[in-house]
Amino acid sequence: MDKAAALREMLATPQLTRLVGAHNGLTARLVELEGFQGVWASSLEVSASHAVPDANILTMTEYVDAARNMNDSVAIPVVVDADQGYGGVAQVARLVRMLEDAGIAGVAIEDKSFPKANSLLPGARQELVSIPEFRAKIMAARDAGRTGMAVIARTEALIAGRSVAEALERASAYVDAGADAILIHSRASTPVEIVQFVCQWRSAAPLVVVPTSYPSFTEEAIRRYPAIRMVIYANAVIRAIISSVRSALKEIGASGGIETISPRLVSLEEVFRLQGAAELAAWEDRYEREGARMTEPAPERTA
Amino acid sequence: MDKAAALREMLATPQLTRLVGAHNGLTARLVELEGFQGVWASSLEVSASHAVPDANILTMTEYVDAARNMNDSVAIPVVVDADQGYGGVAQVARLVRMLEDAGIAGVAIEDKSFPKANSLLPGARQELVSIPEFRAKIMAARDAGRTGMAVIARTEALIAGRSVAEALERASAYVDAGADAILIHSRASTPVEIVQFVCQWRSAAPLVVVPTSYPSFTEEAIRRYPAIRMVIYANAVIRAIISSVRSALKEIGASGGIETISPRLVSLEEVFRLQGAAELAAWEDRYEREGARMTEPAPERTA
Amino acid sequence: MDKAAALREMLATPQLTRLVGAHNGLTARLVELEGFQGVWASSLEVSASHAVPDANILTMTEYVDAARNMNDSVAIPVVVDADQGYGGVAQVARLVRMLEDAGIAGVAIEDKSFPKANSLLPGARQELVSIPEFRAKIMAARDAGRTGMAVIARTEALIAGRSVAEALERASAYVDAGADAILIHSRASTPVEIVQFVCQWRSAAPLVVVPTSYPSFTEEAIRRYPAIRMVIYANAVIRAIISSVRSALKEIGASGGIETISPRLVSLEEVFRLQGAAELAAWEDRYEREGARMTEPAPERTA
Amino acid sequence: MDKAAALREMLATPQLTRLVGAHNGLTARLVELEGFQGVWASSLEVSASHAVPDANILTMTEYVDAARNMNDSVAIPVVVDADQGYGGVAQVARLVRMLEDAGIAGVAIEDKSFPKANSLLPGARQELVSIPEFRAKIMAARDAGRTGMAVIARTEALIAGRSVAEALERASAYVDAGADAILIHSRASTPVEIVQFVCQWRSAAPLVVVPTSYPSFTEEAIRRYPAIRMVIYANAVIRAIISSVRSALKEIGASGGIETISPRLVSLEEVFRLQGAAELAAWEDRYEREGARMTEPAPERTA
Repeated sequence: MDKAAALREMLATPQLTRLVGAHNGLTARLVELEGFQGVWASSLEVSASHAVPDANILTMTEYVDAARNMNDSVAIPVVVDADQGYGGVAQVARLVRMLEDAGIAGVAIEDKSFPKANSLLPGARQELVSIPEFRAKIMAARDAGRTGMAVIARTEALIAGRSVAEALERASAYVDAGADAILIHSRASTPVEIVQFVCQWRSAAPLVVVPTSYPSFTEEAIRRYPAIRMVIYANAVIRAIISSVRSALKEIGASGGIETISPRLVSLEEVFRLQGAAELAAWEDRYEREGARMTEPAPERTA
Repeated sequence: MDKAAALREMLATPQLTRLVGAHNGLTARLVELEGFQGVWASSLEVSASHAVPDANILTMTEYVDAARNMNDSVAIPVVVDADQGYGGVAQVARLVRMLEDAGIAGVAIEDKSFPKANSLLPGARQELVSIPEFRAKIMAARDAGRTGMAVIARTEALIAGRSVAEALERASAYVDAGADAILIHSRASTPVEIVQFVCQWRSAAPLVVVPTSYPSFTEEAIRRYPAIRMVIYANAVIRAIISSVRSALKEIGASGGIETISPRLVSLEEVFRLQGAAELAAWEDRYEREGARMTEPAPERTA
Repeated sequence: MDKAAALREMLATPQLTRLVGAHNGLTARLVELEGFQGVWASSLEVSASHAVPDANILTMTEYVDAARNMNDSVAIPVVVDADQGYGGVAQVARLVRMLEDAGIAGVAIEDKSFPKANSLLPGARQELVSIPEFRAKIMAARDAGRTGMAVIARTEALIAGRSVAEALERASAYVDAGADAILIHSRASTPVEIVQFVCQWRSAAPLVVVPTSYPSFTEEAIRRYPAIRMVIYANAVIRAIISSVRSALKEIGASGGIETISPRLVSLEEVFRLQGAAELAAWEDRYEREGARMTEPAPERTA
Repeated sequence: MDKAAALREMLATPQLTRLVGAHNGLTARLVELEGFQGVWASSLEVSASHAVPDANILTMTEYVDAARNMNDSVAIPVVVDADQGYGGVAQVARLVRMLEDAGIAGVAIEDKSFPKANSLLPGARQELVSIPEFRAKIMAARDAGRTGMAVIARTEALIAGRSVAEALERASAYVDAGADAILIHSRASTPVEIVQFVCQWRSAAPLVVVPTSYPSFTEEAIRRYPAIRMVIYANAVIRAIISSVRSALKEIGASGGIETISPRLVSLEEVFRLQGAAELAAWEDRYEREGARMTEPAPERTA
């Protein structure tokens, strides 16, 4: 089964699927190795790892390069967090074709205007586009695809301070336009408005949640709402990284070396293992041997 | 003072300068914020972050993109670990020009053949090129430059199992060819052969060490050898990352959410701060206001 | 003198400067070799050479890659036709920094919305942004720069069907915001409205024209208007290419080979010459020799 | 049928297939529109269009970007001229996977060392790798593929001044290693040595010829040798371009404008047509309309 089909199956089955945000091949691979079912190629993580604001500073092709590297590093599906699609329907169509060529299983696009601000950035303006404008993008994304990549419509209605009713109206219109799932996002510190949304959701289309602001909404709680099929831990990885890198650097600086910190670092051997160094060396050796092993001259040549 | 000049000054002064390996804009910025004087754009870190072996799998232009992002994220000098220069003298010359356009302060090239294996990978073949061949590369690098980017010659003689005498002969020939500094690398678990090299080094050219295999060679010990002007902690960052990401993922998986791990993650606000989100928002607001503030019509127009 | 300074001098002196549109290193080099003073990195040529519409389908970074290649191939200034700057002020600021790193001498940005349609495409909607919004971009571009890259403000007022009076008002406001020159564009088949604009232009800021639609406005005619300092032949190169490639392909197809067409093709030797193949071979040989020529051991080593 | 299958069928059937070299989306599309069956993503054309020598100056990823653009612009198969594969077996394997992701139908790799010189460059050193080493690359390319992309082995034996017998020995060993076809290249000014090779070829594997140096070997002549299934006109396009661009620039320079040359240029409308501008505008309009056409509220929501 290909990755797009695997993702569609995850969205179709009642079990809750867990994705974790990553920003490069290594973090994607670590997500896979810890048993999560998919990778969220997070816009926040990718921009933060480049040390630029999450405000469409990186271009679409730069995001696709990051997504391609994540996908090439794992066997599980990758879902790309593609903001508003980096423009209008023409930009969305090119995006979809590039992501499919990269092997990506799903793309999430949101109903904000270009350029964007991060959804959880305090004080940022959050402008929504009209429902027809965003429906057009969903349709364009769906039609541009050739491989069954899932299109997840993300409504930022609650982020933009709109009502749960508007969020529901938008989500419903997006499903009608062909969205395979709805990602309902919220910046509230409790899951109250998310729960309101979920309880009023009447479509069969699956829901996706991102409990960054309301971490108390754990899987145990989420499982009470069968409409929610997917939970995304969108930025825990980069937040863990910042913490640990800082702490390691502080210790190196203070101790004047890596001797004291070494026990808390993974070994170089482990780095090599994660890179697949031994597999590559074995592959090279194998082809060196195979290349040298000529078959007997074919009869037609000696004839 | 530009970054290349800053790096040259670091190599010229007797104080020991400390660089730390990074692989993207974020880790480079963290290195700068913790007070280190420069960033080592590590080949191992960049390849590992892409989840590919450190064996010239990524192309030169991919490395340059990573280096450009690191440099754009910091005000301190970035030194690029450029393997053997990704080919011959023509490839080295293009590399140098691209790195200079990206604002890079220094480049390290090594006397191994293309494609390479990581210097510390157990069992890997480590093939050296001849002294004349590598001297040609150093000369080409030096001549291709226009901005004073430092060229650091890295000899892998000890890595390849050659004698300290050969390492000295090579290093000396490289200085003669125009290298601004010598990076002397070793895979021994103690600094014995490095110390032998340093004690026999008669040139005025500064030395650079990378105590990955021999972490007991702390700055306190290094400072006894004034010829060593720079120490590079080449891969501690990525090793700290792997450790912490794994541990965070395990806890998310086990606890079914991010609630329990949240206290150990930096806040989202801190992520935004590192991305420069508030500065960008202020910049946007400022230009919005300035754009609207028209001066009085110029007299010549109303005349 | 660097390229940005050379471009500024061209805009400052009364002589008419001629730029020609190109789309890659080769066409830029041909423009230089025929004696033109600058290269116009044309949005239409770059998109057409990629076989995609001139409608912001390619991303900013793809355009920068094309511009970098053009600039690396010539010693004359390159002016980049950067549409509306690919977004808002934040996108413009990154664009400016990337273009400067690439050595670009000037950038032209226009007062249309994102995504754009080509200015001369029949039936296309041409939406302008407000004057304050575009002034903000000019200011952002000017402030983001560090190397003196010229910022040329292109008003599409006439393209969008607005009056000459509005075009003048916009242009004046853009100069007030810091634009180094004004590109006044028109889709009329005669230069009448351009001439009206030029005759009413009261600022000292230089004007740039692009006589694609009104080819009768030759340099002889243009020279009557001293405010016009620069003329750009924006897309003649790609139009010549399409013609000639088609004709060559037809003949190859019809004759079943390249024998009959060969006399009309440049020789392979000429291709090699334009690529700088002999210079590279000489450079390689020189460094091979130099690398092998060791100096006598330095005195301090033998001491 | 996908493009790789289409290419394999072309190689399997007795009819002579004609490919033409291109270097970007536009020239690839022109090749298709004139009825040729495939596009040769020419190393010489791509490097020349970037104004750099054909000597592995551009990196593998830069070539893949060019190839992806060509493939995205046509419905016919694209065969990528990938030099020696840009390194060893590990580099070849990554190349193959990237080309397959880009939709490429076939790849040609040659038995020269890295970095290369153009095969027809006078005076250039042409170094061959050993047969086992190149066999290893063919095997690696074949095994790395997942989509049936054809692997064409190009022997440079005659280019390197070796005998026809050695060329036959190499070609046979490459077929034995899994090559789908053999490209036999020659720099002689007549097809004599090519004909000798073809007449002694005993394998069922198809042959490919590139009559750049010996243009008298037209299709009429080639068809006498049924083992030759494909002829590639590798660099006629860029040679036609240089000729015509020069001539157009000279006339613009001399006449002081584009008025006199305009009749020999294709119209802007034709440029727009080749870019697919009208299709894009229609696509955008269609989605704008579709986005606005909401279905009746789904019954489950109103229930």
